[in-house]
Amino acid sequence: MRLSDEDVARFADEGYVFLPETFSPAEVAALRREVPGIFAQCRDEVWRERDGTAVRTAFAAHTYNEAFRRLAAHPRMIEPVQQILDGPVYIHQFKINGKQAFDGDVWQWHQDYGTWARDDEMPEPRAMNIAVFLDDVTEFNGALMFIPGSHRSGILDAGHDLETTSYPLWTLDHETVRKLAAARGIVAPKGPAGSILLFHGTLVHASPGNISPWDRTIVYVSLCHVENHIRRFKRPAWIAHRDFTPIACLSDDCLLELAEQAAE
Amino acid sequence: MRLSDEDVARFADEGYVFLPETFSPAEVAALRREVPGIFAQCRDEVWRERDGTAVRTAFAAHTYNEAFRRLAAHPRMIEPVQQILDGPVYIHQFKINGKQAFDGDVWQWHQDYGTWARDDEMPEPRAMNIAVFLDDVTEFNGALMFIPGSHRSGILDAGHDLETTSYPLWTLDHETVRKLAAARGIVAPKGPAGSILLFHGTLVHASPGNISPWDRTIVYVSLCHVENHIRRFKRPAWIAHRDFTPIACLSDDCLLELAEQAAE
Repeated sequence: MRLSDEDVARFADEGYVFLPETFSPAEVAALRREVPGIFAQCRDEVWRERDGTAVRTAFAAHTYNEAFRRLAAHPRMIEPVQQILDGPVYIHQFKINGKQAFDGDVWQWHQDYGTWARDDEMPEPRAMNIAVFLDDVTEFNGALMFIPGSHRSGILDAGHDLETTSYPLWTLDHETVRKLAAARGIVAPKGPAGSILLFHGTLVHASPGNISPWDRTIVYVSLCHVENHIRRFKRPAWIAHRDFTPIACLSDDCLLELAEQAAE
Repeated sequence: MRLSDEDVARFADEGYVFLPETFSPAEVAALRREVPGIFAQCRDEVWRERDGTAVRTAFAAHTYNEAFRRLAAHPRMIEPVQQILDGPVYIHQFKINGKQAFDGDVWQWHQDYGTWARDDEMPEPRAMNIAVFLDDVTEFNGALMFIPGSHRSGILDAGHDLETTSYPLWTLDHETVRKLAAARGIVAPKGPAGSILLFHGTLVHASPGNISPWDRTIVYVSLCHVENHIRRFKRPAWIAHRDFTPIACLSDDCLLELAEQAAE
């Protein structure tokens, strides 16, 4: 799977590319049916909201769940990122964000690379995210908001917010967000389950809380060029991975195969 | 100003009618320029979010501010409501909801008449809301969400939520909202400042938090047929008014006049 020249140009200008319905309903189902079992586990990797119940994010499921292991090496995920980052990549972070119906909390305005640089000493923003929608993302259930072009601002000043949610995050101040949004506006790509979003490590983004009756499960995989691996191991290895082996893609039907096994 | 037969039929079926750009930019400006002064006041009527700073809602501004006094008797507000409620009306509640940029908190799923019945002993749901947008309402800044047709459910069971936000509210449980939304979906009418929304007292609605850099100021006026006035005076008079005198409309240019005075 290769991005078109147009997609590559859009990524350079806006900092993101949206590819609707990249995974089929059967492939999505093979992933989604694993989520309740993962979210039910009591383990450090499963991080809950302030209410102590709803799952905010589940880290590293690709290390202990077969369906997510396959997703983490799926060519439709990995190849476009290899193309943009121009070389082999490893997984820096892998998480399933719950943003559960009624109780899913906000993610404040931030740049992911801000955290990767400050906490993990990742040398350059030669790393990016890919988001896979496991539910339909609509205007109601907490769609991700991007400020297009903001990735070209470099690393912006940030404060370490330990209070707003259950998860510590390097967040941007109001004035910075106000200025960036005044210049370029805000977009919130929405689409059916199976859609994917590629976005730059320095793109400014946030997502509101979800008070709708519909879950908004999204898998976020942060991929980094292998030469650009992190230098500091402050955070747990299940948050900031330390295996810098280049990902070898599986076959394109690796998820479909699981779906077919389940159907039998 | 009269609603069309089509609007009246839509209100009966869906529980709301959206009328974009009912007030002109000049009229909106005459109201909006008063808001910072009102929000800056330290008085019981100005209710803040949990952070103690951002204004959640400012009650009864029509009793002490000339621009909002005029709005409260504006024929474009009052006449459609008199038409639907079929007779003279009084103001049961008047508030300016801040839903301020970055800090505006949620309003949980509820029916307004649930509160009017339980707290104020309003005999029948012969009362409704009219919302006037003082800012553009978009997908980003916390648009009101309605479940169409839910007003025909009557008064639904509710619990008194004293914890989620700074303001006590009779809220619906998740299962009720889930079922109603599964049947009829959710809508979030959006439009430019000056638009108005009429909605039934038993319509199920909510609004998410606002983490965008844009305020979402909306005036909500709850109007009640004069014969249906409240019987119990438990809440302060600036929350649940006790003057049941029928509203006499001012002239259609009453706000424009203020705007012109300001321009001079």
